[in-house]
Amino acid sequence: MTKKIVLAYSGGLDTSVAIPWLIDKGYEVIAVTLNVGEVDKDIEFIKEKALKVGAIESYAIDGMAEFADDYVAPVIKGNLLYEGEYPLVSALSRPLIIKKLVDIAHENDAVAIAHGSTGKGNDQVRFEAAIHALDPDMAIEAPIRDFHWSREEEIEYAKEHNVPVPIGLKSPYSIDQNLWGRANEAGILENPWNQAPADAYELTVAPEEAPDEAEFVDLTFEKGLPVAVNGEKLPLWKLILKLNDMAGKHGVGRIDHIENRLVGIKSREIYEAPGAAVIMTAHKDLEDLTFERDLAHFKPIVEQQLTNMIYNGLWFSPLCDALNAFIDKSQEVVNGVVKVKLYKGTAVAVARQSKNSLYDESLATYTSADSFDQEAAAGFIKLWSLPTTVYSQVNGKTAKSTEQSK
Amino acid sequence: MTKKIVLAYSGGLDTSVAIPWLIDKGYEVIAVTLNVGEVDKDIEFIKEKALKVGAIESYAIDGMAEFADDYVAPVIKGNLLYEGEYPLVSALSRPLIIKKLVDIAHENDAVAIAHGSTGKGNDQVRFEAAIHALDPDMAIEAPIRDFHWSREEEIEYAKEHNVPVPIGLKSPYSIDQNLWGRANEAGILENPWNQAPADAYELTVAPEEAPDEAEFVDLTFEKGLPVAVNGEKLPLWKLILKLNDMAGKHGVGRIDHIENRLVGIKSREIYEAPGAAVIMTAHKDLEDLTFERDLAHFKPIVEQQLTNMIYNGLWFSPLCDALNAFIDKSQEVVNGVVKVKLYKGTAVAVARQSKNSLYDESLATYTSADSFDQEAAAGFIKLWSLPTTVYSQVNGKTAKSTEQSK
Amino acid sequence: MTKKIVLAYSGGLDTSVAIPWLIDKGYEVIAVTLNVGEVDKDIEFIKEKALKVGAIESYAIDGMAEFADDYVAPVIKGNLLYEGEYPLVSALSRPLIIKKLVDIAHENDAVAIAHGSTGKGNDQVRFEAAIHALDPDMAIEAPIRDFHWSREEEIEYAKEHNVPVPIGLKSPYSIDQNLWGRANEAGILENPWNQAPADAYELTVAPEEAPDEAEFVDLTFEKGLPVAVNGEKLPLWKLILKLNDMAGKHGVGRIDHIENRLVGIKSREIYEAPGAAVIMTAHKDLEDLTFERDLAHFKPIVEQQLTNMIYNGLWFSPLCDALNAFIDKSQEVVNGVVKVKLYKGTAVAVARQSKNSLYDESLATYTSADSFDQEAAAGFIKLWSLPTTVYSQVNGKTAKSTEQSK
Amino acid sequence: MTKKIVLAYSGGLDTSVAIPWLIDKGYEVIAVTLNVGEVDKDIEFIKEKALKVGAIESYAIDGMAEFADDYVAPVIKGNLLYEGEYPLVSALSRPLIIKKLVDIAHENDAVAIAHGSTGKGNDQVRFEAAIHALDPDMAIEAPIRDFHWSREEEIEYAKEHNVPVPIGLKSPYSIDQNLWGRANEAGILENPWNQAPADAYELTVAPEEAPDEAEFVDLTFEKGLPVAVNGEKLPLWKLILKLNDMAGKHGVGRIDHIENRLVGIKSREIYEAPGAAVIMTAHKDLEDLTFERDLAHFKPIVEQQLTNMIYNGLWFSPLCDALNAFIDKSQEVVNGVVKVKLYKGTAVAVARQSKNSLYDESLATYTSADSFDQEAAAGFIKLWSLPTTVYSQVNGKTAKSTEQSK
Repeated sequence: MTKKIVLAYSGGLDTSVAIPWLIDKGYEVIAVTLNVGEVDKDIEFIKEKALKVGAIESYAIDGMAEFADDYVAPVIKGNLLYEGEYPLVSALSRPLIIKKLVDIAHENDAVAIAHGSTGKGNDQVRFEAAIHALDPDMAIEAPIRDFHWSREEEIEYAKEHNVPVPIGLKSPYSIDQNLWGRANEAGILENPWNQAPADAYELTVAPEEAPDEAEFVDLTFEKGLPVAVNGEKLPLWKLILKLNDMAGKHGVGRIDHIENRLVGIKSREIYEAPGAAVIMTAHKDLEDLTFERDLAHFKPIVEQQLTNMIYNGLWFSPLCDALNAFIDKSQEVVNGVVKVKLYKGTAVAVARQSKNSLYDESLATYTSADSFDQEAAAGFIKLWSLPTTVYSQVNGKTAKSTEQSK
Repeated sequence: MTKKIVLAYSGGLDTSVAIPWLIDKGYEVIAVTLNVGEVDKDIEFIKEKALKVGAIESYAIDGMAEFADDYVAPVIKGNLLYEGEYPLVSALSRPLIIKKLVDIAHENDAVAIAHGSTGKGNDQVRFEAAIHALDPDMAIEAPIRDFHWSREEEIEYAKEHNVPVPIGLKSPYSIDQNLWGRANEAGILENPWNQAPADAYELTVAPEEAPDEAEFVDLTFEKGLPVAVNGEKLPLWKLILKLNDMAGKHGVGRIDHIENRLVGIKSREIYEAPGAAVIMTAHKDLEDLTFERDLAHFKPIVEQQLTNMIYNGLWFSPLCDALNAFIDKSQEVVNGVVKVKLYKGTAVAVARQSKNSLYDESLATYTSADSFDQEAAAGFIKLWSLPTTVYSQVNGKTAKSTEQSK
Repeated sequence: MTKKIVLAYSGGLDTSVAIPWLIDKGYEVIAVTLNVGEVDKDIEFIKEKALKVGAIESYAIDGMAEFADDYVAPVIKGNLLYEGEYPLVSALSRPLIIKKLVDIAHENDAVAIAHGSTGKGNDQVRFEAAIHALDPDMAIEAPIRDFHWSREEEIEYAKEHNVPVPIGLKSPYSIDQNLWGRANEAGILENPWNQAPADAYELTVAPEEAPDEAEFVDLTFEKGLPVAVNGEKLPLWKLILKLNDMAGKHGVGRIDHIENRLVGIKSREIYEAPGAAVIMTAHKDLEDLTFERDLAHFKPIVEQQLTNMIYNGLWFSPLCDALNAFIDKSQEVVNGVVKVKLYKGTAVAVARQSKNSLYDESLATYTSADSFDQEAAAGFIKLWSLPTTVYSQVNGKTAKSTEQSK
Repeated sequence: MTKKIVLAYSGGLDTSVAIPWLIDKGYEVIAVTLNVGEVDKDIEFIKEKALKVGAIESYAIDGMAEFADDYVAPVIKGNLLYEGEYPLVSALSRPLIIKKLVDIAHENDAVAIAHGSTGKGNDQVRFEAAIHALDPDMAIEAPIRDFHWSREEEIEYAKEHNVPVPIGLKSPYSIDQNLWGRANEAGILENPWNQAPADAYELTVAPEEAPDEAEFVDLTFEKGLPVAVNGEKLPLWKLILKLNDMAGKHGVGRIDHIENRLVGIKSREIYEAPGAAVIMTAHKDLEDLTFERDLAHFKPIVEQQLTNMIYNGLWFSPLCDALNAFIDKSQEVVNGVVKVKLYKGTAVAVARQSKNSLYDESLATYTSADSFDQEAAAGFIKLWSLPTTVYSQVNGKTAKSTEQSK
């Protein structure tokens, strides 16, 4: 009796070759393909292809709504940017994919899960850490990491096993895409002194080719999440796709980042995330309007920790759960509208309003010269600076002045 | 025998009126005006004006080089942006001004220092905290905060005391400027839903009016500080002024920020910092290339703390000294060249190189498929995810999966 | 028609004198006294005394259960120790007292609240910040801060207004106590080189006078809170009182702390918190057993922030709410029993067990030499140290070695 | 021609067997043994033993002074306690040992370094990460990790290669010791519900067996480091040994800790660090007296990061260098004397004095009722609580009160 394995199947050569390879290892292969927002991905075609190449069963799942609501939403609420730059595009789809694979494995009494990552990237960590977290007893196969094949050997093996080999040259780039953005690495980009060529981009035009007229977009937020574009209510996944389109036309959302991978090396990445750029700019701006100061100043520490946890493949972890509890609590007041200007590669918040604004016009009298007590200020300064004042008294008033003069 | 007081003198109506007011309180007034990079500021004229209005002595100091080297430099090395937005423009000149005032007070045996801040802003805190830190025994006068005058009463008092009253209307804005940038508040900006009008800006053109052709600038860094523009070596203060000019023409460096003031209220600020935008973009990009990962991931916490300390007027404090010691140590490897593209309001790092690059081409073989051990990756993942794996084993593998499915 | 004011009434001279003083200012005074665990406090007697001295109404409230459940519980779950030493004793009762005062003010249409704090301590901040947060329109009176009386003048005023004056000398110490502990300052303690004398303590014996035999106590936790002592289930407030008694007899819980007050000065405090010492030692120990590593390493940052917020009077704030959401989420696994040894001033966790233990015996095979893959370790080390390895390759292997040799 | 390898040699069975094993692999073995404070370690005997077992050269190094000055000192200055408990005893000797091995390897043109760690602990990471950092080209051998031998096979191999086999049973514990402390794991300790038995300890007596009379010790600090005990100046290494002796007699410094290892598992450790307990208690107490508040509140974040870096084997890293720069800068004012009471397992700071005290008696007038401006306090509170006050005004004053009432 054979064991069943669930394979994360993309339809490409690598994961297609993996099917006979896993069969050789004694598995029955259940293929799963998921759409999380790749443009033009035909998941029904991919589903069929898996069966032709030897899978005993094949699933095609539309995961866009779930992806947006459960995986992108925390990034928006948390202003999550890895190393201040990267909105975690690929790091977000991995936990969703694994969750689906584990569910299907359980339904089918499968004993193992296979993924198509190589041994040099972050994704292998994200896939395997998620599997361990969701089912520590599940076995893992990483055929691509284990092939140890040259390109020629892979094609040879594909032909022997009736796996269709794509005609023409392989793309010079390694691409990953979902509705939150697109990642591009390798090729000419490997030299950080090379500027990214035009063909490295797909979701955005060059700023130079963007319209000469700015476009303004009003984004409405409820509890930290965007719910309407220019007044039109949309589910999150549709809203992101719409903004990808709008902002991409203005050349917004290009990121050129030298990045620290979890596996210890630096890589140079070209990302495109036009919708993310608009949403995250607006979200931060609305927090500036509605957040109490101490909250505003501590949340970035929570954000950075959550960002690193997600980037590092630890989505399913008690720390992420606790960090998200903090962030969710903070978002109750993040309601309102932000007007963003799109123009030649920029997305800038230019106006904002909120019923939760702590800069509300009804507060004007409170903060006016009349009510803002100037003696309060004098007293405040005295106590605010008392610790450093005493420090100077004790440790020598001239010390600092001299040191600064050097 | 009268007591001497040193006054931070701007030449404007408020600090001019302060001179007879302080004389009335029994002081001999020593006026000090400092140039830290305001465009077209004629400090010799201001120096003379103070004498005409009643000062017994008047100093005019060119502080641009010292300002750049001692006060702006830490901001560059630390990527310091208050609330992620504001490069601390005004917060930087205050400690320098006070340092000069205290030095002059000591030289002249003055017993007090006067500043022209109002009671609602951050500057009063910065001035007074710096005075306390540099000389805890120095008395402080804050005439503007204590006037309690209407505009009409102030003009009346000015005329009575032969203080020249400027003709025409007062600007609708409250401006502060130095070579690191320009701050603008009040007026129509007080409603956050109003877009900033064209006349709120001075150092930058609107992106729409910027050239249709991008300009590229190569910025050379040594130990974290920019030392050359397109290969031309410049002292820091000149380099900043040059980049203000270059980047301002491209509409770079506009910031529209709802900000938490130290005194507890939110304000809406329009900043322009074109040179800062270019330098800080390039500096962060070069750190991405040269910083070891753990350093890259911890430094932001140090940066945020230093930013808040400086914003909050605690420049002269043992914590700032210690934070700067951390940052200075980190900058030893931040050497190299970053190419920045200026175009229609954007300053983007598009290429970078460094002898300290941790993404060096000589490392290519080290990180290639051949030398990057894929079994190392498998082992790494196993131990990396072991804590969350054990957590799942103990606390129930289905728990997480279920919770995520809700 | 007179305005009503609600007074936080202790029964002592200061707040008794405050009653006629507030009546003189035109208020009708409603006195409120609360028992949050002071030993031997007779709140009915205090209630009556307020009426005799002139209050129009007087409330006596037993707040012990609410104090323990809503105010002490977060301290336990958060391991909250201000500056690593002080379990926030007094800082915890202030928000509860104010909450009660505000509720009573609303019920009675009072327009103001009065508290008895002086102008040099933290409590005034905690009282007034809590009032502002719970009702920003409520007026505040701080009679003690405003008396500007000498001791003799106060007694004079008391006699004139039929306020009973206590016979005998005032205690050399300033004491505050609740069920979570006891704070003692001033007097001989003001010189940090003086050792605290025997009469500074009340809840604890000197370690030298404690029993020569150790006592062991088993503390059972559910979701981070202690629920049973040696198997006996108790509500939290009773459990704390019981442990105060048990641990106090062993001299446990004495703290001698030079502390940074919010108002900018250092003070020297003698605290006693015997029950807190036992509970917090056990709680941290149980977290060590049940917490996943990343959570264990990040929570201290959340803890420190929450500690400072509470110490600084910002209990009612959106940041505290979010921090508590983090902490509550983390406590789901903190279940089990910890055995604590009480002996001569020490409370040490000597054994612990939990169904959520991540050091569970059923994991033994998982972590034994057989299953703990040694090649995994080798791979882990390679990638774990890769960033610093590359750093050394680029920046010179001898550099570090030399620098360390100096 | 054979290659040379430098072996970290302890004189025990494992590293003795490693010598022939490495010879078999084609190496000439240079043995190095280091004394960092193990009691009764005879390094000359060990040096000779290595030669007898086959080493071509053998070094015996007294590293105690260097260990104290360069590796223990940062722990003292940083109050470094892993997970709040463990003063990093073993984690400190590893970098020094490797530094010596690398220096000797360079002197002898050796191509590799061998260490005796197993595959389940932290030490392998610390050894190998340090080697990579000091010489990324150096090869590494980990014979114990690679033996894959049973105890019987190891003894067999030892006998075949004339390696002396110790008579009698192996200790039930795995011990590591240096002058900063002693670590003990395994055996009966593996069940966290078992109390540590008496024979688990060596440096300390049981508190019950400690003298009935307390002993007081005055510890003098200069720039954060202890320089004298009861007035007697001592070099750091001698001072630590002396305090180990003094405090060990009083049962001070026992730690029972469930700990998160870097390799992903929890372990239960029994540590003894009597001198460390006294020094670190006194050091923190002196910081409380001399540290400005903001510095006091931020340094713990730096401390925790440095602790984790050192525990995790990243001593030689740019982040550690920068963190130490912060800490060194902070220590300039940490001068003075702390009196510590040793009694029945406790080391408590009971008195302290410093010329840098920010609680100086000469400040008394400054902080007395006369000079401490009570109106300053009122103003301070107003602005301090303004952000939360405005938050309440906007988001509903009853909201909080209601929520807290639940």
